Amino acid sequence: MLTSWQDTPARQAIVDYVERAVQEGGAQYVPPSERIAVFDNDGTLWCEKPMPLELGFILQRLAEMAERDPSLRARQPWQAARDKDYAWLGGVITRHYHGDDSDVKVLMGGILQAFAAMSVDTYAELAERFLLTTRHPTLGRRFRDCTYLPMVELLSYLEAYGFTTYIASGGDRDFMRPVTSDIYGIPAERVIGSSAGLRYQDDDTGGSLVYQAEMDVFDDGPMKPVRIWSRTGRRPVVAAGNSNGDIPMLRYAGRPQRPGLRLLILHDDEEREFSYTSGAETSLEQARAEDWTVVSIKNDWATVFADEA
Amino acid sequence: MLTSWQDTPARQAIVDYVERAVQEGGAQYVPPSERIAVFDNDGTLWCEKPMPLELGFILQRLAEMAERDPSLRARQPWQAARDKDYAWLGGVITRHYHGDDSDVKVLMGGILQAFAAMSVDTYAELAERFLLTTRHPTLGRRFRDCTYLPMVELLSYLEAYGFTTYIASGGDRDFMRPVTSDIYGIPAERVIGSSAGLRYQDDDTGGSLVYQAEMDVFDDGPMKPVRIWSRTGRRPVVAAGNSNGDIPMLRYAGRPQRPGLRLLILHDDEEREFSYTSGAETSLEQARAEDWTVVSIKNDWATVFADEA
Repeated sequence: MLTSWQDTPARQAIVDYVERAVQEGGAQYVPPSERIAVFDNDGTLWCEKPMPLELGFILQRLAEMAERDPSLRARQPWQAARDKDYAWLGGVITRHYHGDDSDVKVLMGGILQAFAAMSVDTYAELAERFLLTTRHPTLGRRFRDCTYLPMVELLSYLEAYGFTTYIASGGDRDFMRPVTSDIYGIPAERVIGSSAGLRYQDDDTGGSLVYQAEMDVFDDGPMKPVRIWSRTGRRPVVAAGNSNGDIPMLRYAGRPQRPGLRLLILHDDEEREFSYTSGAETSLEQARAEDWTVVSIKNDWATVFADEA
Repeated sequence: MLTSWQDTPARQAIVDYVERAVQEGGAQYVPPSERIAVFDNDGTLWCEKPMPLELGFILQRLAEMAERDPSLRARQPWQAARDKDYAWLGGVITRHYHGDDSDVKVLMGGILQAFAAMSVDTYAELAERFLLTTRHPTLGRRFRDCTYLPMVELLSYLEAYGFTTYIASGGDRDFMRPVTSDIYGIPAERVIGSSAGLRYQDDDTGGSLVYQAEMDVFDDGPMKPVRIWSRTGRRPVVAAGNSNGDIPMLRYAGRPQRPGLRLLILHDDEEREFSYTSGAETSLEQARAEDWTVVSIKNDWATVFADEA
């Protein structure tokens, strides 16, 4: 277990924590029902550069819409999607991380229109097909293979020691769900994320659920602890993230009653993955100040992706 | 198993369904991951008369508020709480079932004020203490003992056959959670219900979650399938309810792809529990029209409560 991890202090911190947590009678013992571990997804369990996978999926759909309806071609976000204007799109994310959400709203408006009135079943089929068949633009491997092997091993390791793992992502819940069981061993009911509004549409065969053209929850920052507690009814003891949006979730884990383990993934491996700290500056400062475990992709992971193992 | 059930067609329908669902290779086989069973709580798993248990809890708190603050005593819902004006309170529920929610709003306003800024941990302690120590006004037993033994047996029976059970209640999620594991074997993460808004409040010890003076979700009627799917990512195959608010959940279960089992509890036992159909009229009509299994408390249950067994 954890064979894709280098034998470094990060790996040691994980092993030490888990051994103490399962040591019955020990001062840091955590009963099984409280062994809740939450993981951000984009940039923590799978790649988020050059853009979140989900955004690729959405852009594909927006571009298709603009092909069918020329009136959309001069409007954002359809224009950027059709013209593959990654500068505009990347800027939306960067500006979001720095507190400017004006373009996020433009982008979200397009996204919500793109899937409005679609059933959850159709959406799940499209998302699954995208993840299983589309390739990452620079890494070359299929998107579903852009998961970090050491993190997949960590999920299994925690489960083997009686932890229950959840995804707590700012990404779209229903985009991830079709594949999380296969790629992470995390079933649909343990995927927490952002979501569009849903409506029950009755019919003669029991009805179906369809998306509405409005957001329900944007699961980032202080909403992460809220959604984690709403779903689990418990305060997690283990949390892993990689950006400023994960700070409340990381701070919330464990304290004040229980020992906690907080992991922050540092993207510093230009060769095997990507190197960036944009959007993670504050979380890296907090990690230093509060003694979180920073996981360097370059130094702490022997292997990043399963297909290079 | 199911020993508190009489040997009647209702019990037989349950047993037949489950045997077919687990029969590998059978035409009605349901794979384990799809064996999702959802249960309403008030009036389906525990008593809801003369008023929902949760309302007793809330009234206790509202009465305490009115004791402390005389200006509240002439205002609803504090006045009714302090004066034990059950006629007004009962009317709120009855009028809700008939489509008039004006007083529901008045009541909800009071409820939300009653718990605003309270932490989820404090609320859980108060709810648990209430359920474990307060007695039902007419049945005499503690509220936590007002659960229906045949339904508790049914939950265990389904779990034994590889089903995963969830509560999908219009009642407050966080009111039920402290006791559902003990009384039903359903852990907190499988309790879906209505909820007040929550806010993450940061502090030096990892922060806490506190209630806001606004509703987040009212989990009734067409919201039940929405919340069930949002939580589980699956369409249930078994659903049990007892009122008009459960119709969409019951219709949604199973169809169109899978065989489903739909149970509607009929309160027709004035001697051992209560006899009423108010708020269930339409669901009883649908049960007849769509061949749901109606469970008569009087005829189908040998024992209602564990302490009479």
